Amino acid sequence: MPEAEDKQFVKEICSRELDFSQWYIDVVRKAELADYAPVRGCMVIRPYGYALWEALQRDLDARIKAAGHENAYFPLLIPESFLAKEAAHTEGFTPQVAWVTHGGEEELEERLAIRPTSEAIICHMYAKWIRSWRDLPVMINQWANVLRWEKVTRLFLRTTEFLWQEGHTAHRTQQEAEEEALRMLGVYADFCRETLAIPVYAGPKTENEKFPGAVTTYTVEALMPDGRALQAGTSHNLGQHFARVFDITFLDEENQLRYVWQTSWGVTTRLIGALIMVHGDDAGLKLPPRLAPVQVVIVPITFGGSKDDVLTHARTLRDEIAATGIRVRLDDRDEYTPGWKFNEHELRGVPLRLELGPKDIARDVATAVRRDNRAKVQVPLSNIAAWCRDELASIQADMLAAATAYRDAHTRVVTTADEFFLLFEGRPGFIKAPWCGDGECERRIAEKTGATIRLLPRPAEPVAEGGCVDCGRKATTWAYFAKSY
Amino acid sequence: MPEAEDKQFVKEICSRELDFSQWYIDVVRKAELADYAPVRGCMVIRPYGYALWEALQRDLDARIKAAGHENAYFPLLIPESFLAKEAAHTEGFTPQVAWVTHGGEEELEERLAIRPTSEAIICHMYAKWIRSWRDLPVMINQWANVLRWEKVTRLFLRTTEFLWQEGHTAHRTQQEAEEEALRMLGVYADFCRETLAIPVYAGPKTENEKFPGAVTTYTVEALMPDGRALQAGTSHNLGQHFARVFDITFLDEENQLRYVWQTSWGVTTRLIGALIMVHGDDAGLKLPPRLAPVQVVIVPITFGGSKDDVLTHARTLRDEIAATGIRVRLDDRDEYTPGWKFNEHELRGVPLRLELGPKDIARDVATAVRRDNRAKVQVPLSNIAAWCRDELASIQADMLAAATAYRDAHTRVVTTADEFFLLFEGRPGFIKAPWCGDGECERRIAEKTGATIRLLPRPAEPVAEGGCVDCGRKATTWAYFAKSY
Repeated sequence: MPEAEDKQFVKEICSRELDFSQWYIDVVRKAELADYAPVRGCMVIRPYGYALWEALQRDLDARIKAAGHENAYFPLLIPESFLAKEAAHTEGFTPQVAWVTHGGEEELEERLAIRPTSEAIICHMYAKWIRSWRDLPVMINQWANVLRWEKVTRLFLRTTEFLWQEGHTAHRTQQEAEEEALRMLGVYADFCRETLAIPVYAGPKTENEKFPGAVTTYTVEALMPDGRALQAGTSHNLGQHFARVFDITFLDEENQLRYVWQTSWGVTTRLIGALIMVHGDDAGLKLPPRLAPVQVVIVPITFGGSKDDVLTHARTLRDEIAATGIRVRLDDRDEYTPGWKFNEHELRGVPLRLELGPKDIARDVATAVRRDNRAKVQVPLSNIAAWCRDELASIQADMLAAATAYRDAHTRVVTTADEFFLLFEGRPGFIKAPWCGDGECERRIAEKTGATIRLLPRPAEPVAEGGCVDCGRKATTWAYFAKSY
Repeated sequence: MPEAEDKQFVKEICSRELDFSQWYIDVVRKAELADYAPVRGCMVIRPYGYALWEALQRDLDARIKAAGHENAYFPLLIPESFLAKEAAHTEGFTPQVAWVTHGGEEELEERLAIRPTSEAIICHMYAKWIRSWRDLPVMINQWANVLRWEKVTRLFLRTTEFLWQEGHTAHRTQQEAEEEALRMLGVYADFCRETLAIPVYAGPKTENEKFPGAVTTYTVEALMPDGRALQAGTSHNLGQHFARVFDITFLDEENQLRYVWQTSWGVTTRLIGALIMVHGDDAGLKLPPRLAPVQVVIVPITFGGSKDDVLTHARTLRDEIAATGIRVRLDDRDEYTPGWKFNEHELRGVPLRLELGPKDIARDVATAVRRDNRAKVQVPLSNIAAWCRDELASIQADMLAAATAYRDAHTRVVTTADEFFLLFEGRPGFIKAPWCGDGECERRIAEKTGATIRLLPRPAEPVAEGGCVDCGRKATTWAYFAKSY
């Protein structure tokens, strides 16, 4: 079978134990999720990778709308002078901006930034739209591409152009803005857990790590199997920083002119990277059923004379399962063997495979194989759609349980400097340790270990007694340290 | 009621008869569909305008997928040298390209174009991905933003940045590519007619009017109420032009290396402009029910003591209608009068309004008002959801019928030069006239009248006898002329 030999993709995946980075790249490329683009730092999201993004978008978009937001679209290009208005924001983003200097035949009078994020352009519009307390809150989200110039490329994880959603809200009071920032943090945490089957820690960033221009940045942080943390989403309470520089005011009910209180929050295509890493194995992807573009694949096992009969039964089976709303595919391609198909669908992470051959049909069963744990059972055909539904739910739950067990086993509470620095000679996962609250200690730890404070506990957890793992002074809070993506 | 006086938006819409362009801008801005951005030529698509785009996307995306395509995402930035490869393509697009010259702190060695269209980058990737006949056809679509530098801005109709979908396919044979280009032309025509309630003529463009780099460009053309045609979508048979310059080859079944045959096809946010113009009136938008974000709005009519009772009934009514899958909204805002709400929902084009007051409740009816023709009837509450479903279908059909009647009444067959040029002193709509096939005549007619050949009939309609309306030589075909957007 020359077709199969052309494409021995599964054999070409590096072992995850041997070289995690290489394994990741191999899976992304062999499963045809993404490819490198000719412009440095850019990627092409191939159809199967984009199907994951569409599934993720569909689920998260419904959650964002259910939380009261509407989608809109703001321009790609932002005048340089707009970006320059908020000092921290400028300093944070300017080194990464791609600049447009010519439009058609003409040289522009002012350079235009390709948006690295859209606060500057959105605040400009909000200043025009918002007049009175009746116009508030403004609850807008957009799905868009953004650019941040990168020197290295890691498909999905770090690319110059990426896709994301960015929510931007404006409120009458500080409290409303804080509640909104926390509500969206909760939406992200629920989404990661319930849909991606990825458990996260959720809480505030330190001053050093917050978004340029924010009062507080909240984050959801996931743990990858190589012991590194990945920031899965952020939600910022922007206070009135942007309102003041962009002059976003409203007349309150007492006819007083006030500045609005704002938030912004976003997740990116990087979540696909997290999904691949958290669940994958040496055979390729493992997709949680809620997100999987194909939840059940039926592979007919045909021998010579039995082919028509098996295919007829397989089509009936497909139609029965599809009728219940499960995303099912019958893989009736002639040019590949069943074994080849098994490998391919495992590589692509299809949660459940049903094999159907003459012997199965004779016994009124199908052979079901779970992708997550390879468990293989015979399932009576009589009630198989309901069985699939239950099994998919069980796979979803088991994948979350496995990821949570890993995360918990790799979250360690450490109180002594010795243990702390020893552990960070490797990649231990999250280390929860006492910290004095001083950004200088935080920076020193990062220099010594490569680990940063990923987040602080929420609700706050003051340290009863003992000192900062770095300086030994009185610790003011616990902090989650990790090396990160 | 000061809130109402703040926002006398309906009064501020210019009459359509008086000044169609001003009417259009007023509707776009008063209905909060879009706004001007600070960068020349760019727009902000506000939530209600974006909701129209989302509805349009959802419907069209399902049709594109049903026709066998998958979505993907290709990079925003294209190296200048890639754009330069196909000569006609370069000449056509270079004058409109926005150029990135700096990334972060560094000046780039090669300028990068923000995509004006993606053939160049996609063909580059296809050359890497396509190896054998087994890899064909490649059937990929993307939803993306593109930039074409414009000197004038007309919200939705002509903007520097716009949103669109662009399909790009590669095939083994010339015939397959031609069939694909025509299939997608049919998908666009069906979509315009069935979902947007906009009738279109579908057929090939002339050589002068085709896409830079295409062998044949097919178009769907709609007629606006000011007598101008609007190109609603195009589908290109690209032949092997791009395959040859980007070296996209495959080994066929006989192991011969061959170039692929390609198509590309797209529609843009300009369709929202068509939707506004074709159906709107002096009160604002009229949305076809299949596309309307809100299909039915319930406005409670409350007086003092009856308020709680009316709202209770209105909520029950809403829930009953929502349960059947109709997109219904109860407008229970306290700060606006019913009359104010009527105006606002008319402005926003909601197809069906249900008014519910104490008298209605006493008689077990609601008062229903259609947006398209303002017909007002009492509807028994007992079976109102089913009535709404039927009425929405009837509105959809009637809107298409009205638009078709207008289009047909403004499509005239003309065989003499005198009549032809006299009619084009105004904006008569489509004029179908005999043409010799010479591009010079076509250009001369455009200079004299401002009208261009929008499309040729399909199937082809040779002219039995008589001469070209411009030069008088033997006419080879009928052609549809119009002034256009």
